[in-house]
Amino acid sequence: MAEFTHLVNERRSASNFLSGHPITKEDLNEMFELVALAPSAFNLQHTKYVTVLDQDVKEKLKQAANGQYKVVSSSAVLLVLGDKQAYQQAADIYEGLKVLGILNKQEYDHMVQDTVSFYENRGEQFKRDEAIRNASLSAMMFMLSAKEKGWDTCPMIGFDAEAVKRILNIDDQFEVVMMITIGKEKTESRRPRGYRKPVNEFVEYM
Amino acid sequence: MAEFTHLVNERRSASNFLSGHPITKEDLNEMFELVALAPSAFNLQHTKYVTVLDQDVKEKLKQAANGQYKVVSSSAVLLVLGDKQAYQQAADIYEGLKVLGILNKQEYDHMVQDTVSFYENRGEQFKRDEAIRNASLSAMMFMLSAKEKGWDTCPMIGFDAEAVKRILNIDDQFEVVMMITIGKEKTESRRPRGYRKPVNEFVEYM
Repeated sequence: MAEFTHLVNERRSASNFLSGHPITKEDLNEMFELVALAPSAFNLQHTKYVTVLDQDVKEKLKQAANGQYKVVSSSAVLLVLGDKQAYQQAADIYEGLKVLGILNKQEYDHMVQDTVSFYENRGEQFKRDEAIRNASLSAMMFMLSAKEKGWDTCPMIGFDAEAVKRILNIDDQFEVVMMITIGKEKTESRRPRGYRKPVNEFVEYM
Repeated sequence: MAEFTHLVNERRSASNFLSGHPITKEDLNEMFELVALAPSAFNLQHTKYVTVLDQDVKEKLKQAANGQYKVVSSSAVLLVLGDKQAYQQAADIYEGLKVLGILNKQEYDHMVQDTVSFYENRGEQFKRDEAIRNASLSAMMFMLSAKEKGWDTCPMIGFDAEAVKRILNIDDQFEVVMMITIGKEKTESRRPRGYRKPVNEFVEYM
């Protein structure tokens, strides 16, 4: 079985983690190097990760997550944020294309203006949708990258986002899109994988 | 380099496709078998794919996508939909846990009720966010699965969602979260990969 297929089959959402498995910034940065290569609309890279290793902060996050124990049994807790103002960095992000001569000044200005007006014309709801959309693409890349490096994850949505923003001092510019806990899964707590719809139930061909 | 790392490095968003590379339902279903294993909140599997192989329909979609040529040069066009009413299938999706005896009747009823009230308490905006969030997790899994099977993709957001819904007769229950074109990349049209922020610019540790 190809390694990717094996990886996808092996990736499970952990319901609990083993204690005594500290994770380092170096471990996590290896995963983030891959996450950086995820696609994002207009290459704006809307996603930001607040990665909590500190046990006291994890305790506070546990309260904001309905007391879910895996928040503190995890090796780290990631808050996946989407930047609703990401489009405002278009000029910086596309700068390299001009410096490398791939775009001339006029083409560069056009590209920046097209991206900025694309977001401004569609308004606040769209900017928020884009924060959620692109941060979720990134989050899936993170969970597969973590599994590839031998770590287990659990994506979570059962938490009070406003409380999390207060605990971590997150600006309103950012949408808290998802919480991901990472560690070494306590496999004794594992259930059989949940029922999955057959392909013909979620795919329609035309 | 591990196969997954190679896959992530090789996956690029195609700006154009080679003609003459038909894709079959069997090719696509192999990818969807992997996509089925993506995580989703409460295992509700919010995502649905309308996969267009018909060239006439692709021509109509091209008009709805600002005339972008890759819509018709692609081998297929996928509309990634998120079901805003996915939580209403909780009873069916969890049924197997009761049948297998993993849950007794009371635990099963609790689990269904907890999931349904989680969505109903948080309201319409949350249901919509969840459609976008979970469909985007699924879409990232699709793009990596496609690359693993030797196909190239391009996630797209530059289209008129209402026009797409009319063309494909998509019910308002579904959010059109993303368009993905798939085919064999016309590498002559390829630019160097866009600038990527260094890890320390999008990751904060606490």
